Amino acid sequence: MTVRVFVTGGTFDKEYDELSGKLYFRNTQVDEMLRRGRCGLDVNVQTLMMVDSLEMTHAQRAMIVRACRECDEAQIVITHGTDTMVETARAIADGVTDKTVVLTGAMVPYAFGSSDGLFNLGSALSFVQSLPVGVYIAMNGKSFPWDDVRKNRDAGVFERLNA
Amino acid sequence: MTVRVFVTGGTFDKEYDELSGKLYFRNTQVDEMLRRGRCGLDVNVQTLMMVDSLEMTHAQRAMIVRACRECDEAQIVITHGTDTMVETARAIADGVTDKTVVLTGAMVPYAFGSSDGLFNLGSALSFVQSLPVGVYIAMNGKSFPWDDVRKNRDAGVFERLNA
Amino acid sequence: MTVRVFVTGGTFDKEYDELSGKLYFRNTQVDEMLRRGRCGLDVNVQTLMMVDSLEMTHAQRAMIVRACRECDEAQIVITHGTDTMVETARAIADGVTDKTVVLTGAMVPYAFGSSDGLFNLGSALSFVQSLPVGVYIAMNGKSFPWDDVRKNRDAGVFERLNA
Amino acid sequence: MTVRVFVTGGTFDKEYDELSGKLYFRNTQVDEMLRRGRCGLDVNVQTLMMVDSLEMTHAQRAMIVRACRECDEAQIVITHGTDTMVETARAIADGVTDKTVVLTGAMVPYAFGSSDGLFNLGSALSFVQSLPVGVYIAMNGKSFPWDDVRKNRDAGVFERLNA
Repeated sequence: MTVRVFVTGGTFDKEYDELSGKLYFRNTQVDEMLRRGRCGLDVNVQTLMMVDSLEMTHAQRAMIVRACRECDEAQIVITHGTDTMVETARAIADGVTDKTVVLTGAMVPYAFGSSDGLFNLGSALSFVQSLPVGVYIAMNGKSFPWDDVRKNRDAGVFERLNA
Repeated sequence: MTVRVFVTGGTFDKEYDELSGKLYFRNTQVDEMLRRGRCGLDVNVQTLMMVDSLEMTHAQRAMIVRACRECDEAQIVITHGTDTMVETARAIADGVTDKTVVLTGAMVPYAFGSSDGLFNLGSALSFVQSLPVGVYIAMNGKSFPWDDVRKNRDAGVFERLNA
Repeated sequence: MTVRVFVTGGTFDKEYDELSGKLYFRNTQVDEMLRRGRCGLDVNVQTLMMVDSLEMTHAQRAMIVRACRECDEAQIVITHGTDTMVETARAIADGVTDKTVVLTGAMVPYAFGSSDGLFNLGSALSFVQSLPVGVYIAMNGKSFPWDDVRKNRDAGVFERLNA
Repeated sequence: MTVRVFVTGGTFDKEYDELSGKLYFRNTQVDEMLRRGRCGLDVNVQTLMMVDSLEMTHAQRAMIVRACRECDEAQIVITHGTDTMVETARAIADGVTDKTVVLTGAMVPYAFGSSDGLFNLGSALSFVQSLPVGVYIAMNGKSFPWDDVRKNRDAGVFERLNA
């Protein structure tokens, strides 16, 4: 049983450009993170795009949905910026009905010492193996069904709609 | 719903003593790891002991079983040295039949930059919320039932008995 | 013999704001860095400002010069953004003629795992103790007299004018 | 002008063996540290041995002295375990009289997040360029002449004999 991981960018994968002093995307760090986690799962990592989720277009979101529908795996983890993660989860729920899809991300880039990325990746890979078919967000050590979650921007955490 | 975390030591929590040049136990780093993971779960962390699992006594193992049985929570994560993790899992399975218990650990101390500990903690906390009643080991991004797992000491990974 | 350290900001001290996704200044990390380096020098750390050196005003630069002139110590290290470090060095050389002043900084924030900040701080504190009176820049493991150095912005390194 | 770096092991270069749970030597991390420090010096790194300095033999110490005498460079940094660093410094002072030699090391392995190694390496490379001919120890942000220094084992710091 293989887990598919789709990389779409987000804070997770931001790096520091020492010439410009700005954060930017280069290659995903998911492979390095899986090595560090000594991950023994059969994982198939594919980068779909490297974007800030606030700048994700309708077409890009549709591409993610299509990738979920067309891949062979029935268990999919998506790394995604946190700002529009809920919106993408909703689009996937509309288009994919027979797979377990878990979106995750990070509040701090993996390249920073204090990142939550490794914790979240371990969490998402575990939920995707054990939750029933459906679309979920895995953040802050919890899983949320796609239709009962929002990002609380003031606190920087995800929470249920009717907490 | 609260998750109980019992700390027992193991590689997870080893630190470097700069005066002796040896690895040793001080306080657990689980609280710091939960902060770094921005963990929003209601978690109750309790240190039962700080031991190398090769030196865990029969009495200490019995104490862990008793703690699992007597605590209020139905979902329990135990941080544990990897060398005798399977043995402790078996003892818990004998004594606790109505809870979900997940043991986890690390191959490299959290205090080292390259530790798998944060990944494993995120994984264990997720499995404990989503797996049915039973005793499991969460390592290498996978979950193993207590009676179908061994540590492969040559490779430093956990695997099914009949892989 | 005490070394005075003046903090002025720069990449050195930038942190990641997980709510806005932007880099920003909070408190200096120089004290934490000195602890990590087990620095046994008698060091007196004072934050003058926390600014990106591209935004440093004429008045702020004058304030740094005055602080160097008026402090009791004859050995001064200044942490500073790299972009206008040479300009500030020149201003100090104009105004301070009887002390050893060493400016240093970082290409990557200390909060990032891959930062050069700790290396540079160790370097600057060593040069300030062993170089004669004058104004210097300590970057890339080297010391440069204030009037024979420029930042090569394309390569992200400091170099002599007539290399 | 080139600086020669001789690697001899010590805490600096200890790594964690995740199979045995013990600290051990593999390859030196000095090259990686120089990259991280964006070191622009012309540095020639050579590993002479990888030993715990408590186990350094008389023959090995003689080999270090010979290497210092015979190399082309007049500025030499030696990475060395802290426990017998003073003893090796004395042997070098007996055998090498026309070069600047700076010994350094670390209280915590570089592989640990909290290591002082990068700070010390930046310090040693700076002192070796700016101190007169002689043999020195660079630790804790200070330089000590070889004949006025001891390791205070209780405090884990280096100090002058007549502090």
